[in-house]
Amino acid sequence: MSDAGGVPSPVQEMLDELHTRVRDVDAGEVATYIPALGKADPALFGLALATQDGHVYTAGDADTGFTIQSVSKPFVYALALHDRGLNAVLRRVGVEPTGEGFDALRLEAGTGRPLNPMVNAGAVVTASLVDGDDHGQRFQRIIDGLSAFAGRELRLDHEVLASEERTGDHNRALGYLLRNAGALRGDVNEAVGVYFRQCSIVVTARDLAVMAVTLAAGGVNPVTGRRVVGADTCEHVLAVMATSGTYDFAGEWLLRTGLPAKSGVSGGLVAALPSQLGIGVYSPPLDRRGTSVRAIAACQELSARFGLHLMRPAQRTTPVLHRLLRGDAVSSHRTRRHLEREALRRDGRAILACELQGDLGFTGADTAIRAITDELDGVRWLVLDLHRVNRMEPVAVNLLDGFAARLRGRGVATVVAADAGSGPLAAAEASFASLDEALEHCEDALVAAGRSARLDPDAAVPPEEQDILRDLPAEMLDALTPLLEERRLARGQVLFDPGAAPDEGAASDETLYFVVSGGLVAQVMAGDPPEPVRIASMGPGTAVTKLVLGDDRIAYRVVADEPTVARVLTAAAVKRLEDTHPQIVEALHWAMARHLAARLRQADARNQAMIGSDARRGD
Amino acid sequence: MSDAGGVPSPVQEMLDELHTRVRDVDAGEVATYIPALGKADPALFGLALATQDGHVYTAGDADTGFTIQSVSKPFVYALALHDRGLNAVLRRVGVEPTGEGFDALRLEAGTGRPLNPMVNAGAVVTASLVDGDDHGQRFQRIIDGLSAFAGRELRLDHEVLASEERTGDHNRALGYLLRNAGALRGDVNEAVGVYFRQCSIVVTARDLAVMAVTLAAGGVNPVTGRRVVGADTCEHVLAVMATSGTYDFAGEWLLRTGLPAKSGVSGGLVAALPSQLGIGVYSPPLDRRGTSVRAIAACQELSARFGLHLMRPAQRTTPVLHRLLRGDAVSSHRTRRHLEREALRRDGRAILACELQGDLGFTGADTAIRAITDELDGVRWLVLDLHRVNRMEPVAVNLLDGFAARLRGRGVATVVAADAGSGPLAAAEASFASLDEALEHCEDALVAAGRSARLDPDAAVPPEEQDILRDLPAEMLDALTPLLEERRLARGQVLFDPGAAPDEGAASDETLYFVVSGGLVAQVMAGDPPEPVRIASMGPGTAVTKLVLGDDRIAYRVVADEPTVARVLTAAAVKRLEDTHPQIVEALHWAMARHLAARLRQADARNQAMIGSDARRGD
Repeated sequence: MSDAGGVPSPVQEMLDELHTRVRDVDAGEVATYIPALGKADPALFGLALATQDGHVYTAGDADTGFTIQSVSKPFVYALALHDRGLNAVLRRVGVEPTGEGFDALRLEAGTGRPLNPMVNAGAVVTASLVDGDDHGQRFQRIIDGLSAFAGRELRLDHEVLASEERTGDHNRALGYLLRNAGALRGDVNEAVGVYFRQCSIVVTARDLAVMAVTLAAGGVNPVTGRRVVGADTCEHVLAVMATSGTYDFAGEWLLRTGLPAKSGVSGGLVAALPSQLGIGVYSPPLDRRGTSVRAIAACQELSARFGLHLMRPAQRTTPVLHRLLRGDAVSSHRTRRHLEREALRRDGRAILACELQGDLGFTGADTAIRAITDELDGVRWLVLDLHRVNRMEPVAVNLLDGFAARLRGRGVATVVAADAGSGPLAAAEASFASLDEALEHCEDALVAAGRSARLDPDAAVPPEEQDILRDLPAEMLDALTPLLEERRLARGQVLFDPGAAPDEGAASDETLYFVVSGGLVAQVMAGDPPEPVRIASMGPGTAVTKLVLGDDRIAYRVVADEPTVARVLTAAAVKRLEDTHPQIVEALHWAMARHLAARLRQADARNQAMIGSDARRGD
Repeated sequence: MSDAGGVPSPVQEMLDELHTRVRDVDAGEVATYIPALGKADPALFGLALATQDGHVYTAGDADTGFTIQSVSKPFVYALALHDRGLNAVLRRVGVEPTGEGFDALRLEAGTGRPLNPMVNAGAVVTASLVDGDDHGQRFQRIIDGLSAFAGRELRLDHEVLASEERTGDHNRALGYLLRNAGALRGDVNEAVGVYFRQCSIVVTARDLAVMAVTLAAGGVNPVTGRRVVGADTCEHVLAVMATSGTYDFAGEWLLRTGLPAKSGVSGGLVAALPSQLGIGVYSPPLDRRGTSVRAIAACQELSARFGLHLMRPAQRTTPVLHRLLRGDAVSSHRTRRHLEREALRRDGRAILACELQGDLGFTGADTAIRAITDELDGVRWLVLDLHRVNRMEPVAVNLLDGFAARLRGRGVATVVAADAGSGPLAAAEASFASLDEALEHCEDALVAAGRSARLDPDAAVPPEEQDILRDLPAEMLDALTPLLEERRLARGQVLFDPGAAPDEGAASDETLYFVVSGGLVAQVMAGDPPEPVRIASMGPGTAVTKLVLGDDRIAYRVVADEPTVARVLTAAAVKRLEDTHPQIVEALHWAMARHLAARLRQADARNQAMIGSDARRGD
């Protein structure tokens, strides 16, 4: 037997393997200029990877605490952008790479701004920009905000803080230079003090991965489900991390890993891939530019093995247009009478259904529109089926809506089939939950457009025009007609529900319902709690049967879709017919077999047309 | 009537509108330090957008020629990386942003390398690294390479070249400083001369868009279909453009547009979004940092309106697991005899089919594996249906294969359903073109695993165990059996092909084929040229009928899938039965109706199970 439940995760195994390999990298030096950091064990190595759905993989010392140091900078920058807005923050702190180290003293000529928020000078100013009336409130905002990014309450390491404060003269000097240049306002010691405390917050590699994935996910922490900052802010922070996150190593870092990142002097590092994942690493030994040696090795390997480079060109991509279906070859699940079927076969090419798939951003929508435009000759109804679309950007809604509006101006109606919640198109004529209902809508419109008196959907269909009966000899029809009992159904009234109370005995198997006017729908119950889902519909001139056969495993409910008149052949009437006109019963059996065969063929026609259009995907 | 053919493109209209708005931006100065550039008309404004499938949208002066200047740098860097490899080029030219202008003189302390290939010093060294024995050959390599990026033969502007040469002392000084630092070898004037000529190549905004999309597409020019450089090279060039493409404006550029880009002094600019598109702009007036003012405005608007920011978090994404289907609720299109159906109903939960969808990179594969792992209890056959997967990265193949290998170790077989060309999984037991065939394979295995003597697929099924006949009274069966003619079919032999030569007359309608051993498949012809596509299969104990009814629009061919024995009820035999045993003919009609109804129900069961599992997507 299988023991599939406990199957190990291939990602976990790959991460473990990578951790084992990188653990042996034995280079770099633990930073000592903050004496408390110098005590860190150089062998420590924690690795964590958090996914956008909130799963966290870890390897090694991923739950070992350390002070966050400079890795705090992008998150505090995010809080400042959130609290002040991009332009207000840009006026105080630039976003240009310095080409220099973390302690660069250079300020922008003319404005006195620090060059970016990832160097210490920029970080001190950034910390002064978060909400708060005084430095105490601002630090509270910072530790609360970082806790929200991490999804747990973070705390200070007072020993490291005391050490930072004792040895922080370089940062104090920066503070005075900033105030001298007009870049920093208020008390320098208080401003630098907030920055010291920010750097002394204790995190783990696991925390950093969650913080990073919160940026990657557009500002909602996927573990807690809580929004921390807005999506625009994340875009901006990640862009600054890409150009300046690892100081004078930022260019080569981005070239080699393709991941926006931020390193810190205690050996921590965050990296993020937008819409995908966050990585947190902790390993104290640093290279000469201040980045953790094992973090560089781990991220380069992760990027290469997992294909995480931001600039990587996509692999094979399927066409955005999954299938094109035309109304003369594919029809809805509506069972239609003979005359309607003929009209659809003749004119159905005026209905074009396009199944789109994949990501619909600018490129997807643009490609789809160009491909559809090439197929529009003679089309009057365009169905856009969005069920296979995985992602729908606002620009795609915008472009498709513009397309629908332009089509409307040329006499082409657009009908959308999409899950609830997919952005509806304002210029569409109608929107349905399924492709089937959308097709049915277009077919109805096509039949109505070419309608003759005999096809008037509101007129009653007499027995001799019923599909099942129309080949019956006149004398049989005359004998049968008086046995048909009229039944009037209100909209929503259930005609039968074999699933609810199974009929017994052969007699009831043979009950037939002829639709005279109105229409019926067949439904199955699905979902939890179960709700009726429409799977087919039947118009005037068609029949539905209540056959209960051998290995029943499924049953329709049949419900009136609108005020409906049906004629019913009851079990008792069939009994009578068997005595008086056995040949009519045989003819009915035969006709039902034909009818079922035709329905099967209809289902298979869909198959074939779909297979056919699948085949053209090779283009 | 509709006039859909000439519907205008919404993208074209948005681009025209944007061009009109940005044209009115009236700031910046035309560069004059190369006198010939100073003559450019400041009103010129060309905009082009090239898509990854090779379509080019243009607005304004997109076909006006101008000298490429610094926009050549990323493309020559790409050629150098291609000719020398990343590490060899990195030893000579760094990739760190300078935080300074295009003419920065700073070289890296210690190595003497220029900081990056986007400043002039780096570009002069880069140009010396492309293939060629002398400066003439190197320039030929450059103009040929840039022509390949553009998809047409590019030429020099000799007037601008002469002007560059006359006024190029700053670049000559750079050349000597480079040679002094050991960064440049050989004759300085020749090296700088190649660079002057590289800058004097004439391009248009349209050319730049195609050059940019060639980088975005991973090195294959989508207009010509020709590979220019490798995908890794494109990754690296785009990363350097992201950090250094617009000199001391690179940080804010990436923050605001999210597009790797390169600007030039003549007013040209390229921008690229990986796997999506390339943008080319030409407008001579520059801002104080040397970037075209209208190019900045146009790219910021394009990025915002079309959602092009590299760091943008995704909008709504559908789950990677589209549907889960279980073998007790959903079956293949194989028509199976009674006993097999019972076995599947009882044990079918051991078959789990998972339809994956969307992009399968690291995140998609990881999410899918975790979701499937939660459902594996009691499963022995796992079907992975990849038909809805739009993109399959190597890492996803890697992870899924690792998963399949781990499952195999626990007694679970993995079966893949995928289009040809989707990477097959080495650890999978089998691979099929359709979900249906994959399901059939697993069902066969399940039936075989629980096989009794009566279910032996190689044993002949006698008439009394044929599904259609098993409820017939013994005396009818005794009368019918002698009329059945045995027919032996070789693999591939056609049993009937109603599409090819329609039978006439009612008699032939009633011919029935009972499968005694072996198996049949139903095929339709699809594609261009038409090829048989399998749509259903029939095993021993089942029957296939050749009903030719009213509005035939589709027809199966029925073909033996393996050496097969069938028993045939011919039209002549039916004729005889009608005279001697009319009640047998009626019973057969009835049984056929039941059989068709059961097939319909089978089709609907698929529908219902699929609807049911669709509903669970809301989780």
